[in-house]
Amino acid sequence: MASDPQLIRDLIERWAHAVHAGDLARVLADHAEDIVMFDVPPPHEGVRGIDAYTATWPPFFDWQRSAGSFEITELEVTAGHGVAFAWALLKCATQEQQAAQPELRLRLTIGLEKRQDCWVVTHEHHSFADHS
Amino acid sequence: MASDPQLIRDLIERWAHAVHAGDLARVLADHAEDIVMFDVPPPHEGVRGIDAYTATWPPFFDWQRSAGSFEITELEVTAGHGVAFAWALLKCATQEQQAAQPELRLRLTIGLEKRQDCWVVTHEHHSFADHS
Repeated sequence: MASDPQLIRDLIERWAHAVHAGDLARVLADHAEDIVMFDVPPPHEGVRGIDAYTATWPPFFDWQRSAGSFEITELEVTAGHGVAFAWALLKCATQEQQAAQPELRLRLTIGLEKRQDCWVVTHEHHSFADHS
Repeated sequence: MASDPQLIRDLIERWAHAVHAGDLARVLADHAEDIVMFDVPPPHEGVRGIDAYTATWPPFFDWQRSAGSFEITELEVTAGHGVAFAWALLKCATQEQQAAQPELRLRLTIGLEKRQDCWVVTHEHHSFADHS
């Protein structure tokens, strides 16, 4: 039996591969009905609930298909009994963007709860550092 | 004895008041040596360790003194045994910015661990939604 940190690493890596592959069903797997996501674009108050979360992905998949990356470069998981969080850095850019700015990373924080003996994502926060 | 969620709410509210007051010692209280912060500005890979975290605040305090707000409008805490996370929305803008864009919010996610029987912040992620 894998440890909780390993189960959560596996969950996040599966999710990132599904995002890159544009596989919506696998992106949504392990996500709670009541998820609150702070996405890169507005709304400022976040995306509330699985239906709103689901709706954010198709436009992003269009961009991914046009040569975007979604590759985890660093991932740290902190897991307790029943609650966990993780932060990650990802290359999420076109080859041209990443070549022009090698240090560019998407910053990601994920909150998880164990419900009915399975880890589910109840919170995601995605952002880029602000250059303005 | 307050519950873990209440202890964490109190910790975050004390921290936000200290930020607004420019009280560095109280901002740093309850923060771990090995904190990783994703700040609004770069570096893209985050601010690593309490010394780097400490160094981010004086320039922000200068801006706060010149009429910036730092007011929590929504806060949700998820606490387990030993690990917790929270997300919050804050008004963090000048009066002019907030009047021009009433929905503008700073998005904040905080990761915490209980160490030596006290909750400490080991991760913070601050961002604004990207309008570009």
